[in-house]
Amino acid sequence: MYNNFNEGIVMQDIYNLAESADKFLQKGEAVNADIISNLKKLVSGFFGLAQINPIVGDIEYNAKKISNYIKYATDIGLECVIFPELALMGYPIDDTIDRHPHIVFENIKWLKGIAAITKDTIALVGFVEPRRKECGKKYYNSVAILQNGKIQGIIRKSLLPTYSEFNDYRYIEPSNISGFQPSDVLGTGDTCISDSKLFNGYGISICEDCWNDGDFFERHLYKVNPIEDLSREQPKLFINCSASPTRVKKEQLKHNMLSFIASKYKIPFVYVNQVGAVDNISFDGTSRVYDEDGKLIARAKSFEEQFLIVNPYKKIGKIYPLTKGLEKSLTEQKVFTLEYESDLERTYKTILQGIRDYFKKCGFKRAVLGLSGGLDSTVCAVLMADAIGKENVFGISMPSHITSKESRSDAEQLAHNLGINFAEAPIRSMIDTTTECLNNLFDTVETKWTDRYMSSFTSDNIQARSRAMFLWGISNEFASCIPIATSDKSELYMGYATINGDMSGGFAPIADVPKTKLFAFARWLNANRKEKNAIPEAIILKKPGAELAIDPKTGKPLIAEDALMPYEFLDEIIWRIENKNESYNELLNVEFVYEKHNKITKEQKIEWLNKFYRRMSTALYKWSILPPSVIVEARSINKSDYRQPITSSRINYVGVDEDYIKKVISNR
Amino acid sequence: MYNNFNEGIVMQDIYNLAESADKFLQKGEAVNADIISNLKKLVSGFFGLAQINPIVGDIEYNAKKISNYIKYATDIGLECVIFPELALMGYPIDDTIDRHPHIVFENIKWLKGIAAITKDTIALVGFVEPRRKECGKKYYNSVAILQNGKIQGIIRKSLLPTYSEFNDYRYIEPSNISGFQPSDVLGTGDTCISDSKLFNGYGISICEDCWNDGDFFERHLYKVNPIEDLSREQPKLFINCSASPTRVKKEQLKHNMLSFIASKYKIPFVYVNQVGAVDNISFDGTSRVYDEDGKLIARAKSFEEQFLIVNPYKKIGKIYPLTKGLEKSLTEQKVFTLEYESDLERTYKTILQGIRDYFKKCGFKRAVLGLSGGLDSTVCAVLMADAIGKENVFGISMPSHITSKESRSDAEQLAHNLGINFAEAPIRSMIDTTTECLNNLFDTVETKWTDRYMSSFTSDNIQARSRAMFLWGISNEFASCIPIATSDKSELYMGYATINGDMSGGFAPIADVPKTKLFAFARWLNANRKEKNAIPEAIILKKPGAELAIDPKTGKPLIAEDALMPYEFLDEIIWRIENKNESYNELLNVEFVYEKHNKITKEQKIEWLNKFYRRMSTALYKWSILPPSVIVEARSINKSDYRQPITSSRINYVGVDEDYIKKVISNR
Repeated sequence: MYNNFNEGIVMQDIYNLAESADKFLQKGEAVNADIISNLKKLVSGFFGLAQINPIVGDIEYNAKKISNYIKYATDIGLECVIFPELALMGYPIDDTIDRHPHIVFENIKWLKGIAAITKDTIALVGFVEPRRKECGKKYYNSVAILQNGKIQGIIRKSLLPTYSEFNDYRYIEPSNISGFQPSDVLGTGDTCISDSKLFNGYGISICEDCWNDGDFFERHLYKVNPIEDLSREQPKLFINCSASPTRVKKEQLKHNMLSFIASKYKIPFVYVNQVGAVDNISFDGTSRVYDEDGKLIARAKSFEEQFLIVNPYKKIGKIYPLTKGLEKSLTEQKVFTLEYESDLERTYKTILQGIRDYFKKCGFKRAVLGLSGGLDSTVCAVLMADAIGKENVFGISMPSHITSKESRSDAEQLAHNLGINFAEAPIRSMIDTTTECLNNLFDTVETKWTDRYMSSFTSDNIQARSRAMFLWGISNEFASCIPIATSDKSELYMGYATINGDMSGGFAPIADVPKTKLFAFARWLNANRKEKNAIPEAIILKKPGAELAIDPKTGKPLIAEDALMPYEFLDEIIWRIENKNESYNELLNVEFVYEKHNKITKEQKIEWLNKFYRRMSTALYKWSILPPSVIVEARSINKSDYRQPITSSRINYVGVDEDYIKKVISNR
Repeated sequence: MYNNFNEGIVMQDIYNLAESADKFLQKGEAVNADIISNLKKLVSGFFGLAQINPIVGDIEYNAKKISNYIKYATDIGLECVIFPELALMGYPIDDTIDRHPHIVFENIKWLKGIAAITKDTIALVGFVEPRRKECGKKYYNSVAILQNGKIQGIIRKSLLPTYSEFNDYRYIEPSNISGFQPSDVLGTGDTCISDSKLFNGYGISICEDCWNDGDFFERHLYKVNPIEDLSREQPKLFINCSASPTRVKKEQLKHNMLSFIASKYKIPFVYVNQVGAVDNISFDGTSRVYDEDGKLIARAKSFEEQFLIVNPYKKIGKIYPLTKGLEKSLTEQKVFTLEYESDLERTYKTILQGIRDYFKKCGFKRAVLGLSGGLDSTVCAVLMADAIGKENVFGISMPSHITSKESRSDAEQLAHNLGINFAEAPIRSMIDTTTECLNNLFDTVETKWTDRYMSSFTSDNIQARSRAMFLWGISNEFASCIPIATSDKSELYMGYATINGDMSGGFAPIADVPKTKLFAFARWLNANRKEKNAIPEAIILKKPGAELAIDPKTGKPLIAEDALMPYEFLDEIIWRIENKNESYNELLNVEFVYEKHNKITKEQKIEWLNKFYRRMSTALYKWSILPPSVIVEARSINKSDYRQPITSSRINYVGVDEDYIKKVISNR
């Protein structure tokens, strides 16, 4: 969708050429001269939104990329090319710069090298700025303005997010000045109030600096508002260099907020976001421009590097589509919902990018995973095949004495449908030997220790751990290969995962996807992937269960919902706690969506709630050792996002009344 | 050592009685009436430093303890009883209060309940204060002043540490007012400047608030200084409620700083610190009082709950000894050193408390660990026996075909010396079965995948993982039992630890102790424990090695130093990076302590440095899945203390020169 319809044909030329150029840029190559000369005629004086995927700490890689983009921007005669927050270092670098300050000095050297090649075209490049002061932290999070071979000035970030996945305040000093400062303060820690906070009419800010509008947010975090500061000088343009991760419903929030700010101040807003994943955190790009009425006039692709050419003054731009499903939610008032449908394509792309970037940035190429014929490993297999290529994925069916014939054939069918490598490796002999060795040992231990369980999970866990032994074995034996941990979010909440078993691996693709969403996701994958219906219907229809033990009542493998509670109910508790911060008593008193469709007694609800809190309290350890994963939902239990002491397992989530307190305190 | 020698006999009476009273308090019981009536005659009008060990989030437990202490303080006629920072909630509660805000409202209810029982004696109780404001974070970190049945006022923390193990700024709003505010602002988020910042002449602050003296610190972090603010009103007394973790050399720093502040302002300083461990973080207590000349007049025990009775006005107090070794370093100028001797008792007590509190607070009672006859598992066994009782520890020797006779007998001898339970469980049949199954699988995989390693760690890892299977099996089969991960700090830095093997466990006691310190520690344990020489000399003398593979050159098990580098050199790199932030080139150019005693070529040094950085870069994943551990050293790789993205493995720690940059940028 082009913004400026009258010039439709020219528009099409611009974006066809720009897309061809992107292919060179993404490969790190110089853009073809024909493309450049043709583009130059069309976009001279335009702006470039350089939506790049840096590698944190790999300054040379990032610097090469940045200088290639600058060269291109200069060649086609742009007024300005804008990079994301901390583009040169990569965001978030976290504590690395504290322990290894040397890399900050390296990033300054490279910044100067990049500055040296700039000409007329202005380049805005994010970097870590050292700060030599007796008081305060050692660094600023800054953007350099490069032009005509020099650093013309800098902007320092004022608002430092320190919640969820953000840790900016750990080693970054907040700036007490918004906007432009001259380059002679760079690296000193000194501040200098210039005649103007603007540069060339731009009001430049960094990420969180624009997330603090008291009129937009019911609750905002900081007392100062850099956008308000900049607005007083009536900039021609707001520019924001960002590294803002994707989360459920965040696109809606971001769109509404940026549109609001542009129209509130009657100033166009250019927003450039990092793309790519850093460990658990995923940035979706989707850079964009709003005009002074808050109308979207350009938007880059999501989850891809792109150099988006726009003219914010003339309102020329192309609006690339969002991931499907997000458009319709843009105008919705409800920020949180349990309807997954509108989020499934974003979920898919977030996880795919998460896997790809983790593999690429760590140097891995291949993955091995156990295929149980169940939903979790099935969805993981599909995602791995799509992320790193089916030839690089090995699915191993590892049947035990409990594994049903159907599970084995479902696993094989899935592998066949996906075209991934497949092997069957029975674990029976290993289980028998291990069980025998262990039983002997248990008998010895029992001579000294009482309290041996009448029934335990030992046998279940031997199976899960034997399988992990196989997968890690392949990882040890074959180059650049890691095993995949297949635990899902609902089960991790309940600690329903085996340590050194299914929750162990080099990467955990679906650890932030609840089970009910996984069912919807499986159907979505079947309908939306190029090869339709890769997931056998039987896998989606079967009731989830670990197939590690037999239910003595039925003689069949235990069903997870019998051990836990209905997944729909479980996932609704998680969703309510994470998104609405509801307490035990609020959960008890509110009517669940689940209850609208299923009659349950209050006793039943209490039983499930109690079980939830009890299991969650002792699952904290497991959360702490979870492999790197992809944060997908609005809130997660990913340890880079949420931290609760393991020793807080005795929290009373129910609470007590005042009479009880009185009694306890006076009886003390 | 009593501070007031003239009254030696009375002093002795006070502290004998107080220590008897402590026994009741520690058990949560009311103090014996005789003790109370005798103490009352001696200490009426004195102060109580209530150095308690709260359980984070277990508000009822903490409230009972606090009210019992208050009752005692009131009964013996004290002027004031002072509790640590966030005493009612426990510190650090971290993100828990964001997701479960209900527990904050619970802590307010309990606070009011506690206030109701207070009489003349003032009680200062730390709690989480909710904050109802449109702008800013949702909570304050506050101290309530309780007296005569009411909350008389509050103090809010101004300086919020957010580095290393601290996360205060994640959910806490900094106060812009130092000192006393009236109680009607409690919970509103409103602020109120009173006639005086003092209460009853006390200038009260919270933890970090006193760590920002620009005259003491070469570099301080914050622009405001609450102590300076309070000093302007000439308080009779500074009081600081703290939760300050122990680290190498931190006692020296803390002592010097507090003494400096007291003498700078000519005001006595009362410092009350939390004791106990919360997951990875250890608080040592060691609460104390300085007089107006900065002279220490009282100091509580380290690593123990205590109610220390003092009179800061009359300079009456008892100075309990520090852990041995720390006294002599108090006046030393060097803050960092590689001489471990002076830190070994503190190390011992820190780890013991860390284990005990993790077990107690999580409800574990017993531990199982593999005994290899090597140093790591040996030291872990000693620590576990001392922490939870020898009868609660099971050491399992799990010999493979590579395990030497000496290793087996050393392990057995150690278990015998310690009196822990012992069993031998050969893993040969398990290894054989696993190896056979795996080899079959590898052959299948090889039909599809190339790049099978010529030699791999598969066989080594099968052994380590089989052992972990045994240990986790026992944990599954016997109640309240967890396996112990025995990895040390040097080896974790190098990734020299097996995933799902020796680095797996419910707790990792020595993950922050480098190998050379472990040797010193083993000798110290042999000399200083009640049962001398429990560790067989052979274990200390043998060269460390995992005994997982045979060196083809020698026909003997591989020595770790051959695979890595000399531990003395390795540990010095770690120490220099962590404490002095030295870069690759600085390390190359500085003369190591190691080099003073060992001649090595520059090429050799470069080879080791390169190996260090290469191995460290790919060890980041292992750091991320490390079990809870005890932070011991000044800096650590514990994930609650240090965070570096795993995908930053391509950082160039060596750096490049400007010509190279010029070439790369212009060639891009």
